[in-house]
Amino acid sequence: MRFNQLINALEGGEACLQSYELATNPELLSAAALDQANQDQISFLEKGNTLSSILNKSKAGAVLIPNDEKLIKVATQRGFAWATFQHPRLAFAESLEILYPRKIVKPEIHPTAFIGEGVELGKDVFLGPNVSIGNNCLIGNKTIIHSGVVLYEKVVIGEGCELHANCVLHPDTKIGTGCVINSNAVIGSEGFGFVPTNHGWHKMPQTGYVVLENEVEIGSNSTIDRPAVGETRIGAGTKIDNLVQVGHGVTTGKACAMAAQVGIAGGAKLGNGVILAGQVGVGNRVQVGDGVIASSKCGVHADIAPGEVVSGFPAIPNKLWLRCSANFKKLPEIVKSLREKDRRAFD
Amino acid sequence: MRFNQLINALEGGEACLQSYELATNPELLSAAALDQANQDQISFLEKGNTLSSILNKSKAGAVLIPNDEKLIKVATQRGFAWATFQHPRLAFAESLEILYPRKIVKPEIHPTAFIGEGVELGKDVFLGPNVSIGNNCLIGNKTIIHSGVVLYEKVVIGEGCELHANCVLHPDTKIGTGCVINSNAVIGSEGFGFVPTNHGWHKMPQTGYVVLENEVEIGSNSTIDRPAVGETRIGAGTKIDNLVQVGHGVTTGKACAMAAQVGIAGGAKLGNGVILAGQVGVGNRVQVGDGVIASSKCGVHADIAPGEVVSGFPAIPNKLWLRCSANFKKLPEIVKSLREKDRRAFD
Amino acid sequence: MRFNQLINALEGGEACLQSYELATNPELLSAAALDQANQDQISFLEKGNTLSSILNKSKAGAVLIPNDEKLIKVATQRGFAWATFQHPRLAFAESLEILYPRKIVKPEIHPTAFIGEGVELGKDVFLGPNVSIGNNCLIGNKTIIHSGVVLYEKVVIGEGCELHANCVLHPDTKIGTGCVINSNAVIGSEGFGFVPTNHGWHKMPQTGYVVLENEVEIGSNSTIDRPAVGETRIGAGTKIDNLVQVGHGVTTGKACAMAAQVGIAGGAKLGNGVILAGQVGVGNRVQVGDGVIASSKCGVHADIAPGEVVSGFPAIPNKLWLRCSANFKKLPEIVKSLREKDRRAFD
Repeated sequence: MRFNQLINALEGGEACLQSYELATNPELLSAAALDQANQDQISFLEKGNTLSSILNKSKAGAVLIPNDEKLIKVATQRGFAWATFQHPRLAFAESLEILYPRKIVKPEIHPTAFIGEGVELGKDVFLGPNVSIGNNCLIGNKTIIHSGVVLYEKVVIGEGCELHANCVLHPDTKIGTGCVINSNAVIGSEGFGFVPTNHGWHKMPQTGYVVLENEVEIGSNSTIDRPAVGETRIGAGTKIDNLVQVGHGVTTGKACAMAAQVGIAGGAKLGNGVILAGQVGVGNRVQVGDGVIASSKCGVHADIAPGEVVSGFPAIPNKLWLRCSANFKKLPEIVKSLREKDRRAFD
Repeated sequence: MRFNQLINALEGGEACLQSYELATNPELLSAAALDQANQDQISFLEKGNTLSSILNKSKAGAVLIPNDEKLIKVATQRGFAWATFQHPRLAFAESLEILYPRKIVKPEIHPTAFIGEGVELGKDVFLGPNVSIGNNCLIGNKTIIHSGVVLYEKVVIGEGCELHANCVLHPDTKIGTGCVINSNAVIGSEGFGFVPTNHGWHKMPQTGYVVLENEVEIGSNSTIDRPAVGETRIGAGTKIDNLVQVGHGVTTGKACAMAAQVGIAGGAKLGNGVILAGQVGVGNRVQVGDGVIASSKCGVHADIAPGEVVSGFPAIPNKLWLRCSANFKKLPEIVKSLREKDRRAFD
Repeated sequence: MRFNQLINALEGGEACLQSYELATNPELLSAAALDQANQDQISFLEKGNTLSSILNKSKAGAVLIPNDEKLIKVATQRGFAWATFQHPRLAFAESLEILYPRKIVKPEIHPTAFIGEGVELGKDVFLGPNVSIGNNCLIGNKTIIHSGVVLYEKVVIGEGCELHANCVLHPDTKIGTGCVINSNAVIGSEGFGFVPTNHGWHKMPQTGYVVLENEVEIGSNSTIDRPAVGETRIGAGTKIDNLVQVGHGVTTGKACAMAAQVGIAGGAKLGNGVILAGQVGVGNRVQVGDGVIASSKCGVHADIAPGEVVSGFPAIPNKLWLRCSANFKKLPEIVKSLREKDRRAFD
């Protein structure tokens, strides 16, 4: 595809094209990072991107950049085809969608797929080899279910979902439209509920179910548990990375994002647009306000007000935590200084 | 089911019924949390439960509560059917068992199940679609094995176990009676044993096996490794949540509980009744005494005496940790104060 | 096998045999830890091993030990067959290889294995029950693929690999020779790439792929993501434990080792021989130098120079961290001491 064709396709997109220079109007076959791109590849830069400094060494054929005089000058001098966007990363995402169109999966019910009684399959569904669909499931139109996926009874899946290989959905799980469940994820397994007694742990039956609203994505090997009663609910547009644990009865608002290895304990409630970085933990029944950001490895054990940015364990405001953790390494000096003054206290 | 029928069923149970009031003796169809229950639903409250304050707003038909005058008064005024128990949470668990009787899985060997040579199946076993049973496995009576489960060779499983979809049991794994293995868990995979050499990592063969004693439960996507020699052993009645790693050669006592994302390194030994909260780590060969509680994200790198409650990393007594971490956020002030006195030391 | 036969087999091995004493030249059937071994079992000891003190209580038939006069004396007095090695642990690994020869898996294409179009299978391949091989995959000679494994399209696997039950390899994944993928691992799933927009998260297409070089091992339930563009690459001889997350676009050098539950965020670069202990996190695009060791639960959020040993979060040099964390528990005293001097500052 020629650069001008790509520009035509991006015009009117959400990334907001501002200006462009066709230069040699190169033929673009694919995309790559700025430091790895060749002449038939497109690349991009964001403001403050650490790769800015290597724009003048890049061998890319075309670059998508922010509206920055200096970058435009370098790109022009190097002879790149270039275009500026309000959101260059989004422009790159849109370019990838154009350059790498999604493969169309041809509808098919593989002969080795097992389909229980009372199952209703929508139009144009794909069921791969060794899929197992429990009794009374409903599968929406155009949904793709890859090899080895297991649905227990009464699972309901909306239109246009994709369930990757070997993931498992437990009874009564409800999934909206356009959801993606990645490989080996487990949705709706029983919550970890045990009551201590004199002779060991007594299991609390987990009679509830999990709801994933529209456009939710769940990462590989992540687990979303069902509760004792009621539901666990993941809000529309929420994206969850790999190896994340969502406990029984958790609810999240819309458009949250959770990075890998996050763990959310039972009954916690997240507002809209909450962002949890890698390996964050959220405690039982904690309430996390709209737009909260918790940085990596943070332990959120108490409620957090909307809009806060928190870090550390126990979680405190991020700016305070940065100053505290910078001073943590002075502790030996602190103790030495005080010991000189007050020997008894620090022996 | 009418409330009086439920009370009859709970009488003599372990939750210890104390007193009750039938009120309108409501028909109960299901159960729910206090803030979500309707008139045909039962709910419960524990001492100190944060929901206590909303008892007077609840729309539940019946409530199970502790023997607390104030709560009894509110429940009576609201016209609820109510009962008091020594252990209201346990009463709720017993109520769920009555209101939601476990579905009976009809014994069946699905025609797509693969069964190796020399396999002995007990009576009334269920093998779902695409199950794969290796040579010389023994499966106890009434054990349920869901779709896609894989057993390697010589796995031995006791009576009345349930193995959920797509979990994997490696050679020689031994499982007692009444165990539950949740979806995509992996039991008996080879331990992470490599010896450093001049030309890379030399693999230590992992010739041992894993034993799960009776009534053990393993969460979804958890992994229990086998050791180089000998066994990894999980004590009777121990409950393990999702995404937990148990390293090679670990042994645990009876009735331990491990929350999600706990990691236990090779050779660690846990006593009886040890509780590890979410994301806790236990180091190589560490010995953890009976009844120890390690709070969330704790790093246990050295032996812990029986009965201790520990927190933080490195783990210290919980009460000390609470005071220390409360003071952590004063570090910038501490340094400022000392710098005023001794400029050199803190520049 | 008689002890002298074992010694013959170990002579000339990498463990470097130094001296030995046949004693009764016992018949050895298997191996065990020193505190559990019987007369027909072999065991070993390393320098500084905590089991040294129990050598004089062991019931082992034979022991592999370092060249240490004291240990030799005890072993001789006890009448053990013994041998000294430069690397006793390696000698034990080599002994296990001899005493427990790997079972040979007979080549077979199980009739329930699904094989797509254009697939090329090498010689002596094993495909277990319910395996699913996507179109245009290439499988090297002698590779073993256990039950329930799913390969998407165009996966390339080298010679002599072993893929354990129910693991999943996504399109275009490339795997070298002699690799091991443990059960339920997921290789090549789409990276967690979403661009924030006014109306939620816009998915960045993940068009890249994953490369595992020769002799790489991936633990059970671990996940290795593919990037938006380019590749995620795991260097030759790198060993990865269970439940590890490797984000999109990560590259590692040769012979790295990552313990369980490590998480590496997108774009990070590890040098050769990097060792990450359990539950370590590495941040986005961080560069970790050759030979770095990060201790357990460490959070590496900034570049680390080659050869450093780091601990804590944020990661600091290990020796400094040990002193700081030892002083952490003095924080209440520190504040008390300063408050006496300056009441205002610490109220």
